[in-house]
Amino acid sequence: MIDVPPVNRPSAFKVAVALVHYPVCNKNRETIGSAVTNLDLHDLARAGRTFGVDTLYIVTPYRDQQQLVQEILDHWLTGHGAEYNVDRKEALSLVRICDDLEGLYDAAAARWGGRPTVLATGARLEGERVRPYETVRNEIFAGRPYLILLGTGWGLAPEVMQTVDGFLPPVCGYMEYNHLSVRSAASIVLDRLLGKR
Amino acid sequence: MIDVPPVNRPSAFKVAVALVHYPVCNKNRETIGSAVTNLDLHDLARAGRTFGVDTLYIVTPYRDQQQLVQEILDHWLTGHGAEYNVDRKEALSLVRICDDLEGLYDAAAARWGGRPTVLATGARLEGERVRPYETVRNEIFAGRPYLILLGTGWGLAPEVMQTVDGFLPPVCGYMEYNHLSVRSAASIVLDRLLGKR
Repeated sequence: MIDVPPVNRPSAFKVAVALVHYPVCNKNRETIGSAVTNLDLHDLARAGRTFGVDTLYIVTPYRDQQQLVQEILDHWLTGHGAEYNVDRKEALSLVRICDDLEGLYDAAAARWGGRPTVLATGARLEGERVRPYETVRNEIFAGRPYLILLGTGWGLAPEVMQTVDGFLPPVCGYMEYNHLSVRSAASIVLDRLLGKR
Repeated sequence: MIDVPPVNRPSAFKVAVALVHYPVCNKNRETIGSAVTNLDLHDLARAGRTFGVDTLYIVTPYRDQQQLVQEILDHWLTGHGAEYNVDRKEALSLVRICDDLEGLYDAAAARWGGRPTVLATGARLEGERVRPYETVRNEIFAGRPYLILLGTGWGLAPEVMQTVDGFLPPVCGYMEYNHLSVRSAASIVLDRLLGKR
């Protein structure tokens, strides 16, 4: 994990979001590493800041991809972007970079003095380990720390599921079609868990 | 408006979404026309298809921007993309191009034999004209046609508000910060109105 200063910003909830680029699935359900998308960082950071998320972790083992993330952050946190759009600076200040899931879990545990409850998201998750949004929301509002994993590409690889405490229900409508972008899914999940009602 | 074949796909709801590129606000609250963003088309089409939206209108008066949208559609509907990802083809088949608000309202009225109820979205809308999500959701499920306007840039220009029937409440969390991308806001609005519960 890249050495970054501790987060000193007050935040509303003990909730972190991790955007995972490895291990994820490709179209053929093979495990791959995906490339970082600039707009993912912006959209998830803006949604995270709007809904009171503490930290947005970007998980990628690739040094060139970590460097890309760092360059984007530098532009918006201390470069021209910081003057051009202070709101964007505030959002992107949530971002931290991690090498892998182990580094992610260590960072999240260090942040709150113990491992948070880790929940995976996905379009096809089901079974006993699925926790209703309302239950998780109530626990968040009661102060329990949570880490929400989002997969890029065609979603989190199966091996990730062994490392988590449970799943959030798939986000869907009343159609059979269910192919949201990770930006859409993340936004909806945060609204369901943390949105003002 | 560009001449396009009528929509023959069965859809769950009489709901259309319009992504407006003119007239919208810039950072200084001046009225401008914004550029089309490729990822907006994909994310909104995928969310629209997932939640059972009938049509996604892209509103821009600029011929070069309309041409860009058409090229994206051609790639995914009949070009290489149609074979590479059939799910994306299905989503992008929702897209229609309009020159302006007048063309948009005409197209929506032609689709359902009369003007739908038109609601604007925005981060700062308030007052008597705001309609609760639950009310609109119930009317949609009862079969009433709706057209939801989303603004790009810094949001729909004030003059748009004179042309609509009402507003949807701003999407927000419990923080003062409220700067969602249009992709995030659109996804959350659709989930609140059409999401499976």
